[in-house]
Amino acid sequence: MEIMTLNSSLSLKRSVDAGTAEQRKVVQDIIADISENGDEAVRKYTEKFDGIRLENIAVSQEELDEAFAAMDEDMLEILKEAADNISNFHEKQKRNSWMHAEESGTILGQKLTPLDSVGVYVPGGKAAYPSSVFMNVLPAKVAGVKRIVMVCPPNVDGTLPQSVLVAASIAGVTEIYKVGGAQAIAALAYGTETIAKVDKITGPGNIYVALAKREVYGDVDIDMIAGPSEIAILADDTAFADEVAADMLSQAEHDERACSVLVTTSRKLAEETAQELETQLQKLPRQDIARRSIEDFGKIVVASNLEEAITAINEMAPEHLELLIDEPMSAVGKIRHAGAIFIGRYSSEPVGDYFAGPNHVLPTNGTARFSSPLNVDDFQKKSSIIMYSKDDFERNAHKIAAFARMEGLEAHARAIEARNKDK
Amino acid sequence: MEIMTLNSSLSLKRSVDAGTAEQRKVVQDIIADISENGDEAVRKYTEKFDGIRLENIAVSQEELDEAFAAMDEDMLEILKEAADNISNFHEKQKRNSWMHAEESGTILGQKLTPLDSVGVYVPGGKAAYPSSVFMNVLPAKVAGVKRIVMVCPPNVDGTLPQSVLVAASIAGVTEIYKVGGAQAIAALAYGTETIAKVDKITGPGNIYVALAKREVYGDVDIDMIAGPSEIAILADDTAFADEVAADMLSQAEHDERACSVLVTTSRKLAEETAQELETQLQKLPRQDIARRSIEDFGKIVVASNLEEAITAINEMAPEHLELLIDEPMSAVGKIRHAGAIFIGRYSSEPVGDYFAGPNHVLPTNGTARFSSPLNVDDFQKKSSIIMYSKDDFERNAHKIAAFARMEGLEAHARAIEARNKDK
Repeated sequence: MEIMTLNSSLSLKRSVDAGTAEQRKVVQDIIADISENGDEAVRKYTEKFDGIRLENIAVSQEELDEAFAAMDEDMLEILKEAADNISNFHEKQKRNSWMHAEESGTILGQKLTPLDSVGVYVPGGKAAYPSSVFMNVLPAKVAGVKRIVMVCPPNVDGTLPQSVLVAASIAGVTEIYKVGGAQAIAALAYGTETIAKVDKITGPGNIYVALAKREVYGDVDIDMIAGPSEIAILADDTAFADEVAADMLSQAEHDERACSVLVTTSRKLAEETAQELETQLQKLPRQDIARRSIEDFGKIVVASNLEEAITAINEMAPEHLELLIDEPMSAVGKIRHAGAIFIGRYSSEPVGDYFAGPNHVLPTNGTARFSSPLNVDDFQKKSSIIMYSKDDFERNAHKIAAFARMEGLEAHARAIEARNKDK
Repeated sequence: MEIMTLNSSLSLKRSVDAGTAEQRKVVQDIIADISENGDEAVRKYTEKFDGIRLENIAVSQEELDEAFAAMDEDMLEILKEAADNISNFHEKQKRNSWMHAEESGTILGQKLTPLDSVGVYVPGGKAAYPSSVFMNVLPAKVAGVKRIVMVCPPNVDGTLPQSVLVAASIAGVTEIYKVGGAQAIAALAYGTETIAKVDKITGPGNIYVALAKREVYGDVDIDMIAGPSEIAILADDTAFADEVAADMLSQAEHDERACSVLVTTSRKLAEETAQELETQLQKLPRQDIARRSIEDFGKIVVASNLEEAITAINEMAPEHLELLIDEPMSAVGKIRHAGAIFIGRYSSEPVGDYFAGPNHVLPTNGTARFSSPLNVDDFQKKSSIIMYSKDDFERNAHKIAAFARMEGLEAHARAIEARNKDK
């Protein structure tokens, strides 16, 4: 891999698949069909896209029990421990309603209420990731969401992936349906005879799922539309090239369009990492995907100093950022834009994907400039509380009425003045 | 107005203008033109839509000073006091970064960072509301956003509304440009020679502004797309009909499609309110708009008890909710879905529009089921912090690697195992 010198910007190639007009049309038609024909349309698309006709799409307790019984016991313990860690971290994000009672008698505040219901999309087949079930379901659970509906496209034999069922069960999903694609998003957004509509839809999916989420956005809430995975590694000569390369490849194996970048003040590390990438790539099962990702979207860049490197990284606003530098904590305050910051060599990115506790659903494609990791706030909404006292009202009524009249809103002023009449 | 009996649902007519295909095309063309031709395209559309050719669209300090000098002094004091109240309330929303240092040496946390830059759209002409400037700008200011750009379409003489300039100045806007419509949204999202791009765009506007915000969403963040104003009033026989009617009309005067609803356990109040509406309507300057709103979208509904009334209101998820009932505080916990809850007769809705402190940018059209008032969180984003200790790493490495392999992600497992090598 060619090593470049940092020249103010990293000039990365990155993009989110926006879909074609044709794909959008397909998705719009499916959504219209599901809205109109409900379950029957769900069955039709499941037969068409997943190759199986299912009369009953709800997963039964028996299926869940079977999946549980079939799971390796050690693996089950690992899954439970990971779920505990994730729940514990998200518990720390949870906020309470607050009220401020003023001496004048006025009370102002903010009431937090969990969403009534959430739908979580989980891809099927090889992309069926139990970690993704945890990361989407557990923050909703911690927030207090009562109804958590999971949808996942069925295998051709009508089953769902075992690990996903087990994870859903551990996480406390309340309903599971065998349906995927745009038809699943439409069913969650508008409801069918079997699936009651939800208030928010989260979770990753293919381009049809992403387009469907975009279509229904506004009628229900959605999480972000995720782009390909990204990692930026900021390293100096204290870092180990084999670890840097391994972490870059852990992103690269996700997707041919994943973006792995090393920005380093050490030319030696840059050169060694380039070699390590090649060595490690040759032994990787998903070598084809990872190689395409590294060759097309990867970059190794040498910066003349840390300051310059950090400026370039802030401009990138990466999904994942690793700090493999001396005294990494002192750089954290300078990082303005990153989904998650992994500090020191024992915080290899997969530690966060699976186990440490923070969410692995993170803003991609530079949206860390304005977006956050999926978190408990995403599953609670706020209501303002205003209880204005008679004292405050009498002192301020003329000001409020004057303000309203300045804006030409006479009925606003009169609503205030209606209170001043003797009754 | 006809009085109805509550029959499980309020069955309201509500909708957000989604725009026509033609309007979407106009907006897409403007955005493409601004992206390509920058300032020159901005000048072209301003001439076309606002009737004035402006070589310099930036508002000068002199213009701000003039607006300030021309403002009535009492009104200036009222504006400043309102701004203080709004800032004070939003200060209470502000959150700190947090870190949790575990005994094992691991540190997990959440870093909060204000957005770098925000653009606020302010409508021009008669819909130029200084209160809207405060409600959009001040939460961003409190969050710590350094660059706050305001855009507003110019009058035909090339000026901006005085009250908007004064409010922008009080609120601490850092740049102001005379540009409106889809061209303003495009300039904020993609930048021109004069206007540097921002990270998030907020503020209300006409259908072209709303469609433009929808188009650029993803490249920058946006606030919600607002629908027409709404108020639900829950009242019993302790409420006064003239106050109820006045509050309904304060919403109705905004928009022919505004939705004002009274749900009451008192048939007497229902009947008196219907009469009061007619009496008050006849004396209202914006009678035409308010009458259309009340006749087409208004409703007076009698419920047989409070429980039933609250269920219907939760189903509506109104933007504004007034509780004009005996012991209103005891009902607050039952309200699951409302943008803002106004408690007691001295909390007439305009108190919150202008003065009390909580934000008046609120979720409409039932989106209070999953959305919140505009707040400081909207202008800060989070980054996860993971500093995993050597101890925790060594204890858990095999679990993390096993989890990764269960998902078929071998490079993830190897990234973990790369740390175990002796170095």
